[in-house]
Amino acid sequence: MFPKNTWYVAGTSEEIKSDKPFSRVICGVQLVFFRNKKNEVIALEDFCTHRGAALSLGYMEEGDLVCAYHGLKVGCKGEIVDMPMQNPKKIPCSKYYPIVEKYGFIWIWPGKIEKVDESLIPYLEWHGNKEWAFAGGVFDIKCDYRFMIDNLMDLTHEKYVHGTSIGQEEIDESPVNTQMEDGYVVTSRYMDDITAPPFWQMCMEHNNLDPTAKVDRWQKSKFVPPGAVLIDVGVALKGKGGKDAPKQDKVRCTVVDFMTPQTETSMWYFWGMARNFNPTDNQLTQDILKGQGGIFEEDLEVLEFQQKNLEKFPNKSLISLDIDAGGKLSRRILSQMIKLEEERYIDNK
Amino acid sequence: MFPKNTWYVAGTSEEIKSDKPFSRVICGVQLVFFRNKKNEVIALEDFCTHRGAALSLGYMEEGDLVCAYHGLKVGCKGEIVDMPMQNPKKIPCSKYYPIVEKYGFIWIWPGKIEKVDESLIPYLEWHGNKEWAFAGGVFDIKCDYRFMIDNLMDLTHEKYVHGTSIGQEEIDESPVNTQMEDGYVVTSRYMDDITAPPFWQMCMEHNNLDPTAKVDRWQKSKFVPPGAVLIDVGVALKGKGGKDAPKQDKVRCTVVDFMTPQTETSMWYFWGMARNFNPTDNQLTQDILKGQGGIFEEDLEVLEFQQKNLEKFPNKSLISLDIDAGGKLSRRILSQMIKLEEERYIDNK
Amino acid sequence: MFPKNTWYVAGTSEEIKSDKPFSRVICGVQLVFFRNKKNEVIALEDFCTHRGAALSLGYMEEGDLVCAYHGLKVGCKGEIVDMPMQNPKKIPCSKYYPIVEKYGFIWIWPGKIEKVDESLIPYLEWHGNKEWAFAGGVFDIKCDYRFMIDNLMDLTHEKYVHGTSIGQEEIDESPVNTQMEDGYVVTSRYMDDITAPPFWQMCMEHNNLDPTAKVDRWQKSKFVPPGAVLIDVGVALKGKGGKDAPKQDKVRCTVVDFMTPQTETSMWYFWGMARNFNPTDNQLTQDILKGQGGIFEEDLEVLEFQQKNLEKFPNKSLISLDIDAGGKLSRRILSQMIKLEEERYIDNK
Repeated sequence: MFPKNTWYVAGTSEEIKSDKPFSRVICGVQLVFFRNKKNEVIALEDFCTHRGAALSLGYMEEGDLVCAYHGLKVGCKGEIVDMPMQNPKKIPCSKYYPIVEKYGFIWIWPGKIEKVDESLIPYLEWHGNKEWAFAGGVFDIKCDYRFMIDNLMDLTHEKYVHGTSIGQEEIDESPVNTQMEDGYVVTSRYMDDITAPPFWQMCMEHNNLDPTAKVDRWQKSKFVPPGAVLIDVGVALKGKGGKDAPKQDKVRCTVVDFMTPQTETSMWYFWGMARNFNPTDNQLTQDILKGQGGIFEEDLEVLEFQQKNLEKFPNKSLISLDIDAGGKLSRRILSQMIKLEEERYIDNK
Repeated sequence: MFPKNTWYVAGTSEEIKSDKPFSRVICGVQLVFFRNKKNEVIALEDFCTHRGAALSLGYMEEGDLVCAYHGLKVGCKGEIVDMPMQNPKKIPCSKYYPIVEKYGFIWIWPGKIEKVDESLIPYLEWHGNKEWAFAGGVFDIKCDYRFMIDNLMDLTHEKYVHGTSIGQEEIDESPVNTQMEDGYVVTSRYMDDITAPPFWQMCMEHNNLDPTAKVDRWQKSKFVPPGAVLIDVGVALKGKGGKDAPKQDKVRCTVVDFMTPQTETSMWYFWGMARNFNPTDNQLTQDILKGQGGIFEEDLEVLEFQQKNLEKFPNKSLISLDIDAGGKLSRRILSQMIKLEEERYIDNK
Repeated sequence: MFPKNTWYVAGTSEEIKSDKPFSRVICGVQLVFFRNKKNEVIALEDFCTHRGAALSLGYMEEGDLVCAYHGLKVGCKGEIVDMPMQNPKKIPCSKYYPIVEKYGFIWIWPGKIEKVDESLIPYLEWHGNKEWAFAGGVFDIKCDYRFMIDNLMDLTHEKYVHGTSIGQEEIDESPVNTQMEDGYVVTSRYMDDITAPPFWQMCMEHNNLDPTAKVDRWQKSKFVPPGAVLIDVGVALKGKGGKDAPKQDKVRCTVVDFMTPQTETSMWYFWGMARNFNPTDNQLTQDILKGQGGIFEEDLEVLEFQQKNLEKFPNKSLISLDIDAGGKLSRRILSQMIKLEEERYIDNK
């Protein structure tokens, strides 16, 4: 259950090297990625149209991909560039997928090529901005990508899943607000006049703030369809204006989450943290990366068991409480996108 | 193929701790076990009725189980005791299963709650009796639980599977008797005037008997539906009366076997040995435990291959010889129990 | 998709020992192999007709196989020879499969016993011939056995898959010829006036030839249905007559390949090299064995990915170029054999 005429993160810029191909399943299709002569990222079905060999076992030759079995050479649009002693024009092309490399990520459009619209890629303000630092990673998670969206649109779970780092008592004592904002689903929670939990105390120290001071804490999750949740999080010294406080009185980050379907029951999770304070402190960047990786591994276990459980108890239905409203609204938007694609398909007939 | 309105061993008393939940599949259902404030064992479906998380990932709070995802708290009957900022009455209960803790085991009733009858739990004479010592273990075996019943109701296999410990030539030279006794299927074999095999020689030494003396050996397997086989085994000095000989002239044990279906093709095997001689010798208890564990691992390999083989050769049927009569009768009783449950179900309609 | 009224290699003579049974899946059937009193190899379904135990867990007793579960003893034709306290005549026989041990291999006939024809086993000229040396191995490969036939009937892939040993530029610059010869599919390629690749240079040194000399190279693959490809390969000093050159001017080998279906998507690959020069040099035999094993492991990876790919992309069809003509013709012969078996079956009705 995922829309196709849309952009998903297929990888990071670092993952796709220029000297060898890279294989990954996206939206149910086994793909091979490589870089052409101009260093552009190319995505094709990982299937040689000659005898079905995996193109990703091949090697690069001047920006073309050479099949490891019989030397068939494919180009950027999946066309057969050359094959020894053969007429390449007689060999069918491989299917290619539109790719845009932007903001340090590889964006893929799994749907109809004539619908491609590069302007639909969400704007990531921190990329290339000296005020910000960013680091992240990728996990292979065996669950429906929508479970991760649910998870991120309701941060109540922080108290239970992440009790030793970012969770605290006040989270589930503070009501969550769910609303549409600029056409996006947004859930937010404000906890005023509290003591910061361990992760935020560490951040405060790195921004020359007293970690034991009372703070106003905020969490604001925004779902950007089909697979992004960007969370504006931070703490500001009490009474200074919360997330709108002056820079010297707060620590503010964006939790970055891109969910890309692998199959119906598995996903790629591209996670990271963009930080809007003390951006040149590389040690801090590494510490946050390590801490966040550990936190997200806690989610991973819960979500994979959730997926297994829904397969073990196929007749059970889930309930939606107010805390689940963000996830529920997000799923509704995804369903509408899918329905629209199906209707378009009928129109075309 | 297993009856449900009946008791199965779900675990040992030691397996279910008071400080954390425990997960196990019984009769096709993923269950979570925990202890409440009164130290009673509780069993629920391992499925949070909110979003399907595995309750067994959670933690205990004053005898209630707290879900690790959003803090939903479930009580002894699967009722929702509390959830932060929510009305627990609006959240569906988890399904609970009747449990009795008795004789050091946790007994579960997978069927209809209105049919529960605690008196159906078989009496285990050695529990809490100073004349006896007991030790045992549990195996996860990938075979239909009825294969283990067949195995235990016909001990001919001892010569072949357990040739170095309890097997001996005379076993398959002595006829096996199968009959109903007090409503139970019983198979028995008597080998008189023989030399004891290694295991029994070791036991004789520990009861001050000459291990090289001629003995009368007996094996008497009793099937207690749905999943127990209790085997009265031992050797007595020749001519002293066999299993009815005076205590100083024999060594006598009960081999304890509880088979609990996991799925149609896998089972939990709770095995042990209750000993009616020299009960205070803890070293002997440990030696027997280790020896019996090794013997039962030999059965495990044979039975798992048997299960795989019946899947590989789906059109083959098995034959029943006289040595298989005990297993065959036991299976017939199980089939009758299942049929009776189905008829009751029709009556209720 | 494999014919059954024909011979396949089931194993090597060394694999089947006289002191214990051996288990292997051939043409979809789990079989047990053992040697009888006369040292003849016997093959039966690996299924005890009593309770379904795996006969291969058993042990040998004077050339009969004893089931490890209840001591049932089976003989060479699958007949029950003995069972303690039982009438063996009342127990059904195990199904047996015709076996011939010849040329160091165990040949099995998976089809109808009344069709058995020993003369159909291909003649292997090097076996027992002092002019030749042979060594080989066996791989368990997760692909349709016909992919390996395709692979061996078109050696174009050598340049790409085996570039560091036997591959060289000239391979895909030389046309391949496909024709029927004595009723067999034969593909051949001749590369004249070239420098030998590393593997052949090593061989030339061991036959007192200058490894840097210009050579005429040949490859001639012959498909012997249903599962053999024998490849006459070698290099001769330039202009001396190629494969017909005098022995002192060439190095010549037969690459031996027997493909035996395990299931529809897996196979046993019996590979080896028969060498017609310097046959007494055991170190050379070992070096070739090691080198060839490494080369064939390169094929293995490509073919297993090809199999997975055809399962991942079930709607794709493959194309056949001129280089694929040998494999295509070989597959057509297999299809005809299968069709003939089905027609015969109809005739019999």
